[in-house]
Amino acid sequence: MPSAHLRNVLFIMCDQLRFDHLGCNGHPYLRTRNIDWLASRGVNFRNAFVQSGVCGPSRMSFYTGRYASSHGATWNSVPLPIGELTLGEYLHDSGRMLALAGKTHWRADTAAMRRLSIEGDSALGRMLGAGGFVEIDRYDGHVEPGKESGYADYLRAHGYDSANPWNDFVTSALDEHGERVSGHRLRNIHLPARIAKEHSETAYITDTAIDFLNARGDEPWALHLSYIKPHWPYIAPAPYHAMYTLDQCLPVSRHPDELAHQHPVLAAYRQQEENINFMRDEVIAQVRPRYTGLVQEIDDQLGRLWETMEKLGRWKDTLVIFTSDHGDFLGDHWLGEKEHFYDTVQRVPYLLYDPDPAADARRGTREERFVEAIDTVPTVLEALGLLRREERVEGCSLLPLTRGDAPEAWRDAVFSELDYTFRPARLILGRGPNECKAWMVRTAEWKYVYWLDYPPQLFDLRNDAHEFFDLGSVPQFASTRAVLHDRLCEWFARQKRRTTLDYQQVQARTGTDKKEGIFYGVW
Amino acid sequence: MPSAHLRNVLFIMCDQLRFDHLGCNGHPYLRTRNIDWLASRGVNFRNAFVQSGVCGPSRMSFYTGRYASSHGATWNSVPLPIGELTLGEYLHDSGRMLALAGKTHWRADTAAMRRLSIEGDSALGRMLGAGGFVEIDRYDGHVEPGKESGYADYLRAHGYDSANPWNDFVTSALDEHGERVSGHRLRNIHLPARIAKEHSETAYITDTAIDFLNARGDEPWALHLSYIKPHWPYIAPAPYHAMYTLDQCLPVSRHPDELAHQHPVLAAYRQQEENINFMRDEVIAQVRPRYTGLVQEIDDQLGRLWETMEKLGRWKDTLVIFTSDHGDFLGDHWLGEKEHFYDTVQRVPYLLYDPDPAADARRGTREERFVEAIDTVPTVLEALGLLRREERVEGCSLLPLTRGDAPEAWRDAVFSELDYTFRPARLILGRGPNECKAWMVRTAEWKYVYWLDYPPQLFDLRNDAHEFFDLGSVPQFASTRAVLHDRLCEWFARQKRRTTLDYQQVQARTGTDKKEGIFYGVW
Repeated sequence: MPSAHLRNVLFIMCDQLRFDHLGCNGHPYLRTRNIDWLASRGVNFRNAFVQSGVCGPSRMSFYTGRYASSHGATWNSVPLPIGELTLGEYLHDSGRMLALAGKTHWRADTAAMRRLSIEGDSALGRMLGAGGFVEIDRYDGHVEPGKESGYADYLRAHGYDSANPWNDFVTSALDEHGERVSGHRLRNIHLPARIAKEHSETAYITDTAIDFLNARGDEPWALHLSYIKPHWPYIAPAPYHAMYTLDQCLPVSRHPDELAHQHPVLAAYRQQEENINFMRDEVIAQVRPRYTGLVQEIDDQLGRLWETMEKLGRWKDTLVIFTSDHGDFLGDHWLGEKEHFYDTVQRVPYLLYDPDPAADARRGTREERFVEAIDTVPTVLEALGLLRREERVEGCSLLPLTRGDAPEAWRDAVFSELDYTFRPARLILGRGPNECKAWMVRTAEWKYVYWLDYPPQLFDLRNDAHEFFDLGSVPQFASTRAVLHDRLCEWFARQKRRTTLDYQQVQARTGTDKKEGIFYGVW
Repeated sequence: MPSAHLRNVLFIMCDQLRFDHLGCNGHPYLRTRNIDWLASRGVNFRNAFVQSGVCGPSRMSFYTGRYASSHGATWNSVPLPIGELTLGEYLHDSGRMLALAGKTHWRADTAAMRRLSIEGDSALGRMLGAGGFVEIDRYDGHVEPGKESGYADYLRAHGYDSANPWNDFVTSALDEHGERVSGHRLRNIHLPARIAKEHSETAYITDTAIDFLNARGDEPWALHLSYIKPHWPYIAPAPYHAMYTLDQCLPVSRHPDELAHQHPVLAAYRQQEENINFMRDEVIAQVRPRYTGLVQEIDDQLGRLWETMEKLGRWKDTLVIFTSDHGDFLGDHWLGEKEHFYDTVQRVPYLLYDPDPAADARRGTREERFVEAIDTVPTVLEALGLLRREERVEGCSLLPLTRGDAPEAWRDAVFSELDYTFRPARLILGRGPNECKAWMVRTAEWKYVYWLDYPPQLFDLRNDAHEFFDLGSVPQFASTRAVLHDRLCEWFARQKRRTTLDYQQVQARTGTDKKEGIFYGVW
């Protein structure tokens, strides 16, 4: 139900932030008091899962409300097909806009734009080129910010004198000889970044958001505030680089059995450089304190944003979502980075603050029911009273959960996907470009992973919460696997493939052949 | 392998022509000597199956080389999404064109065209509006031909004086009182249409093709010659309306057990008017002779086209495909029309004439290996030496089968789909717009149909070739069903969802993060 109270949307995303790296989610040392405060005012969804453990496809699911094999952008750098619609475009269609500060990992379908003669510098071309967002300031954080960001100029204006201050200052440090060393090399990240914390990318992006809120005043707005941290490069500005000691970090979660009984695809992944490195204790000891510090930095910056919200009176009329596109292994399961189907990567923080008085009864509660990333679009659409776009959107609004009027039958499983075509693992395994796929179905009790042409994985989450023991080939669990495999098949079957007619058009055309002058089988 | 001998493509499609209604496929009375002659010069694929038993989705699979749930046009009148590419557009991209004479059932994605500011009357808009075809003359045969066809003017010029000669003459007859009666009503189709056979739609469309071939002379061409017959309205011009007696028609194939043990969705379909009527012997007796006559008419007209091919010397350099978009129950299985997963509807004629001398050894042979409609696009692309578009195309070229160099491991199953959302059956069953789906996997031995939320169907094709006895709920076949269900799940998994990068781009981007300046997990 749309809310008379709700006029604005603040959709905050972190990149690569694990579920367990927040105070409100049980981290014993991290002091995320601002994020925790949001949890105390909203609902903390404890079982929120992404649709893919990789930035690109996960974000496209957040932005389209569709599973990765529905939207088609199955990995980083794969353009979202031009026929797919995003939250920004839905808002645009309703005379609103979705502003962007930070990262989207968006790649425009330039081949389709050429095919359809859409000029990149036309209004339409700019909208498609930005995935429906109005880019206040965009940068993805892998390489230096481009023209779509003011960060480089900002840095130069603040005395970071360089043609590429991102590279030379933000992601660099000085070693003991005063030499510049790269924060992209894990060996260097115990050093502080060459940037004052007030000028870090996390501070800058927060400034951008604060400026935007101030500028909008009482005009309605929707903003995607999308931090590029705690994603690599893990180098942090002082004091965050040294704020947490290793013994204040979560311990690494791995078991020798995981190496003794490796799934073939995981074995291939473990031959990739990042995983070879993250198997080393030295690397874990180097990265975890910095990763934890970077989360702290985000929380500190959010404190400034909360002050602006308070000052402007925005808590009374703003829906706030706080989440992440996926987690980070940090050495868990003898892996670094992400992609695979462990909860470490697939489960993310998801806090939802709903300003409507109907949500008062559930403020500060924890919600165990399953949430998927694809629920974000329908939640925002419902909050703003816009069309539900059911012919495309595969998620469901979470507002019934904040307002306590959810149906008894909520989803009892979540789904995620991986396309590992672009990874060295494919070449190691000698696979073709359409053969590198896997899907996860996860219930409260089980996690089943279907690997095309390889044995499945199965984890008993009740008895093996850490997911150390793969039961994918253990004969006694054959019937469990079969049931979960069928669930996956049904999930394939329910995906929304017919998107070119909306449900009103579908209803209007059902059983109406005769009305349209089409007679058959009439005696 | 492209052929130096092959310059032209003639892709002939009939509408609703059953596999068994050709002399070369065993019909005991039908004298399809021209089609049979083509079979004697090419390869007769005896196990060719469509991707859906309905015009629209089946044709879109023929035209895109993709399964219906990949291309998204899941039923009639559902526009093909603008991001999907068709054979016509592939040829257009290569500086060629795919001409059209007749039916396509194409619906443009006008919502997407509006969204992307594509004017319908621009060159691009016309191309998209016609599905990549260059429409010499198009009409779909349901209602009167529109401006895209010259047929109405042609009729008026030949003395059929009417604002709507299609309705008043081609699909009408005169009853015993001299009153005009409609050929859309089955009670009237024992009467001849009010049109000389030289002016029938089948003759007119053949004229169009002949004129096109003559006009092209020795310039290369590709033509989709797409007859609207023997699809309803079943009214035929003299002498075809009375050429075959009922005892020269194939007997109806149905069994009381099919009504005694009805699948719930089939039971709902059998409450629809066309099926209520086609259960009656009177209707079958009325329709079958006319349907048979209409096939004869097509064959007779093809004789004229063959003469033109001969005269122009086109047999030496033209690939010829003869097929149909699906069959027609004609009362079989207590059903009329199409849609369902019986071979009557799903199995179609598929003749392939390959002019290359490498195909000489297999001329006049029958081929039992499975063909799918989606093989048409890759066959044509290979024949013309064009890019294979593997990132999208899900079928495979049939030229290895005409030239005798096919791999030993050919496909051992075919797949089809149904979206019955638009049918009265959905309302009878009280289902929503994304809940009316079914899928078929058919091997040489078994046919398995997965109905979303309903029991499956299973037929033992070796012991029940007529598909009378549904084993979908018989306990002893549970393991057979499980195996076939898994095949279907694997088929879902292999569908091509990542279409925005071609395979060259995919290869170029595999394992190249560092080259692109993206460093992670590096010590």
